[in-house]
Amino acid sequence: MNFTASQIAQLINGEIIGNPSVEVNALSKIEEGKEGTISFIAQEKFAELVQHSHASIIVISRSFVPKNTVSSTLIVVDEAYMAFNKILQFYAQFRYKKSGIETPNFISEKATLGTELYIGAFTYISDNVTVGNQSSIYPNCYIGNNVTIGENVMIEPNVVIYDDCVIGNNCIIHSGSIIGSDGFGFAPTSNGLEKVPQLGNVILENDVEIGSNCTIDRATIGSTVVKQGTKLDNLIQIAHNVEIGENNVIAAQTGIAGSTKIGNWNMIGGQVGIAGHITIGNQIKIQGQSGINKSVSDNETLFGSPAIDAVAYRKSYVHYKNLPNLVKRIEELEKLIHVQNSNNGI
Amino acid sequence: MNFTASQIAQLINGEIIGNPSVEVNALSKIEEGKEGTISFIAQEKFAELVQHSHASIIVISRSFVPKNTVSSTLIVVDEAYMAFNKILQFYAQFRYKKSGIETPNFISEKATLGTELYIGAFTYISDNVTVGNQSSIYPNCYIGNNVTIGENVMIEPNVVIYDDCVIGNNCIIHSGSIIGSDGFGFAPTSNGLEKVPQLGNVILENDVEIGSNCTIDRATIGSTVVKQGTKLDNLIQIAHNVEIGENNVIAAQTGIAGSTKIGNWNMIGGQVGIAGHITIGNQIKIQGQSGINKSVSDNETLFGSPAIDAVAYRKSYVHYKNLPNLVKRIEELEKLIHVQNSNNGI
Amino acid sequence: MNFTASQIAQLINGEIIGNPSVEVNALSKIEEGKEGTISFIAQEKFAELVQHSHASIIVISRSFVPKNTVSSTLIVVDEAYMAFNKILQFYAQFRYKKSGIETPNFISEKATLGTELYIGAFTYISDNVTVGNQSSIYPNCYIGNNVTIGENVMIEPNVVIYDDCVIGNNCIIHSGSIIGSDGFGFAPTSNGLEKVPQLGNVILENDVEIGSNCTIDRATIGSTVVKQGTKLDNLIQIAHNVEIGENNVIAAQTGIAGSTKIGNWNMIGGQVGIAGHITIGNQIKIQGQSGINKSVSDNETLFGSPAIDAVAYRKSYVHYKNLPNLVKRIEELEKLIHVQNSNNGI
Repeated sequence: MNFTASQIAQLINGEIIGNPSVEVNALSKIEEGKEGTISFIAQEKFAELVQHSHASIIVISRSFVPKNTVSSTLIVVDEAYMAFNKILQFYAQFRYKKSGIETPNFISEKATLGTELYIGAFTYISDNVTVGNQSSIYPNCYIGNNVTIGENVMIEPNVVIYDDCVIGNNCIIHSGSIIGSDGFGFAPTSNGLEKVPQLGNVILENDVEIGSNCTIDRATIGSTVVKQGTKLDNLIQIAHNVEIGENNVIAAQTGIAGSTKIGNWNMIGGQVGIAGHITIGNQIKIQGQSGINKSVSDNETLFGSPAIDAVAYRKSYVHYKNLPNLVKRIEELEKLIHVQNSNNGI
Repeated sequence: MNFTASQIAQLINGEIIGNPSVEVNALSKIEEGKEGTISFIAQEKFAELVQHSHASIIVISRSFVPKNTVSSTLIVVDEAYMAFNKILQFYAQFRYKKSGIETPNFISEKATLGTELYIGAFTYISDNVTVGNQSSIYPNCYIGNNVTIGENVMIEPNVVIYDDCVIGNNCIIHSGSIIGSDGFGFAPTSNGLEKVPQLGNVILENDVEIGSNCTIDRATIGSTVVKQGTKLDNLIQIAHNVEIGENNVIAAQTGIAGSTKIGNWNMIGGQVGIAGHITIGNQIKIQGQSGINKSVSDNETLFGSPAIDAVAYRKSYVHYKNLPNLVKRIEELEKLIHVQNSNNGI
Repeated sequence: MNFTASQIAQLINGEIIGNPSVEVNALSKIEEGKEGTISFIAQEKFAELVQHSHASIIVISRSFVPKNTVSSTLIVVDEAYMAFNKILQFYAQFRYKKSGIETPNFISEKATLGTELYIGAFTYISDNVTVGNQSSIYPNCYIGNNVTIGENVMIEPNVVIYDDCVIGNNCIIHSGSIIGSDGFGFAPTSNGLEKVPQLGNVILENDVEIGSNCTIDRATIGSTVVKQGTKLDNLIQIAHNVEIGENNVIAAQTGIAGSTKIGNWNMIGGQVGIAGHITIGNQIKIQGQSGINKSVSDNETLFGSPAIDAVAYRKSYVHYKNLPNLVKRIEELEKLIHVQNSNNGI
């Protein structure tokens, strides 16, 4: 689909420098920009590239507009990153979209289905399931008994949602994620490990996005909860009875152990481990691979395993790398002291 | 379903303090207890809550029974945690249970199926598969050629079991887990990496539980084995030719590299990495995120990466956090020594 | 299937010591060798076992041939490991192989299918998909719109490939892996986190193998790329816009963050985390659980989090374990200095 610089400038409320009728039909990264594509510059480190890019159109933050003339047509905005995101969203509308109820499927007569749905072939919908309007459930999914799915939800292929779970409006669940499998609870006995039945559920509030191949376990009693607007990357483990607040961003391969409570607007890096039965505040940043083993209040930045303040951790790490030299300095001091002790007759 | 305090007291062999005919129809956590629910108190830190809980019935360990009268009906037992687990198991019986052979399915004529099975729609059963009595295979599963599945096994939706694997009685495999994919073996050559075919299988003995989205690779030759009663949490990687003993508990996101042997009754934390070709003893505890790079004998508690004795690791970590201060103390000593050296004319 | 020592010696171009007509019908590990099986010895630490093994045939590197006579028939080669791999490959040919197009399936009329395919039941193939000759797509897979799959590709059960992705010739994708799910991008706004649409794709070049339950995200714009001959183990996360070069070996549970570029012939251990927007060179070795937070040139060996040179890391770790003792030595020096200062009247 072709769009002119004028059309795009109008969409993002930008100002054109160059040819308003130049056309593009694809997006490009600034370092790979070529004719017929539109790209953007939102960071100082890429500002130079405006001189050399072959992109036909570049959306650029006002502060990086060059003084000289460049070959690309520029669309100047206050903040190019957010403006370009509007263009991405505009393009995203034109992607393929499946619709209707495909066969073969397995849909219980006791399920309640909304309107304007997509339900893919080989998807299984159990008794007493409710699916809200305009939701999509792609092929090869399994939806357990009594599950409630809100409106405008996107469930990608091969997702499993166990009995009793609740999925809010506008949620996206990527392929291979498992919502509501049993929490990990066993009581040791002389005969072996006795299973603690997991009778609760999982609740995803509105606007939650779950990446691929995540696992979110049902509560033993009550609910494991992910609150409004929180986004999970791929391969993340959320244990039973965890509560995650609003608008958190959690990177891939992180695991959160049972019954931990997490506040709002936190940024949690990849491969982080968070112990069970603790409380994490709000607006915390946790660096990748950190291990959080005790409760944390608001606004901290943490690193290490066990994690401490990130600046302090890095300072200690500088000395860690230098430990062989520090040990030599101690040995040197011991020698000198010994010499002095000898001199002093001690 | 409603049950009276008397009925429950009888089930768990407890003694009632309060109203024996009060009824409950749900379970609750003690801090969220409300009318019509039953809860429990098994730990000192929750003992106080008996005074304020709105749960209609509280199962309580004898040592935490309050002297004063409380509004909840109490059921007194020696050990409330195990007693409450009996109640959970009692409730678990009443959960939805699917049964029968649903269609469409794909079941080889050469498969041997037991009685009282559940086989879900869209499940694929290959040639020469054997499924024992009273087992369930949920929808969207794939069972490869020659696989043997025991009795009373529960295979949740979207599980894959590759050719030749053996699943013992009473096993539970949660959704998305992959049993028997190829071990990771490649021989470097001048033309690239040459695949080492993986011709073995995976054996899960009786009473094994595997969480969601785990991967257990088949052996190159012989078997990758998980022995009786061992329980795996979610997103765990077990490499080819690993042997895991009995009654181990392994937390989420842990990985065990090829050919390693693990004993019995170990507790392995989350995100632990265990190197290949080593031997882990019995009754070991491994803290989360630890890295085990050499063999370990019995009864140890390990932490760190590479892991050492957990107490020693924590002691060193206290000093690690204090390294900037230690370095200052060394600098101070160097200054003083230098002063003395000058004073002493060295 | 039975094979004689002669037949096998011919296959691997080896020299027989013992009975050329002894037959075997299975493979065994040298420490578990029994009559009727063939095993191998390629490492010095197993050389002793040639004396005691009950394997009927042992393939052995020339340097480990014993002087005395042993009960097993030996087949002597220059390098037993590579020779035995030929035998594994020979055996692998005789494994079950599915073929044909099974039903029920869901195959778009707009898909272009090659010849000699296997497409399993319950597999879903969307519009404009191309599948090359001699490829297999096992049951319960989902192939999105516009996907291109090369020749001789093996896609195991329950794999998902999102729209627009490209899979090269001879690739193997193990069960549960998700190719092309959305990259993890959100722009914080006062109303919450705004999704950045992910409009790119994933390209796997020829001869790539992906383990089970991996996640490889599509690029925001452009492509996430895994180049020729690279092999991924299980549960690996590859974020959007990552580029991985040729012939890399990446062990399980490793994660690579967005836009990072990786060269050729690297060996990356398990549970490694690699930060985003950095460049990794060629022939690097990264030890398990390491965290790489900055660009790395060629031929290094790295360990730690953040990772440094592996030898340096281990040296520092020796002192780390000894920190309590070092602190005592500092305290001792402080006492002595204090004594001297007193003696010297400072």
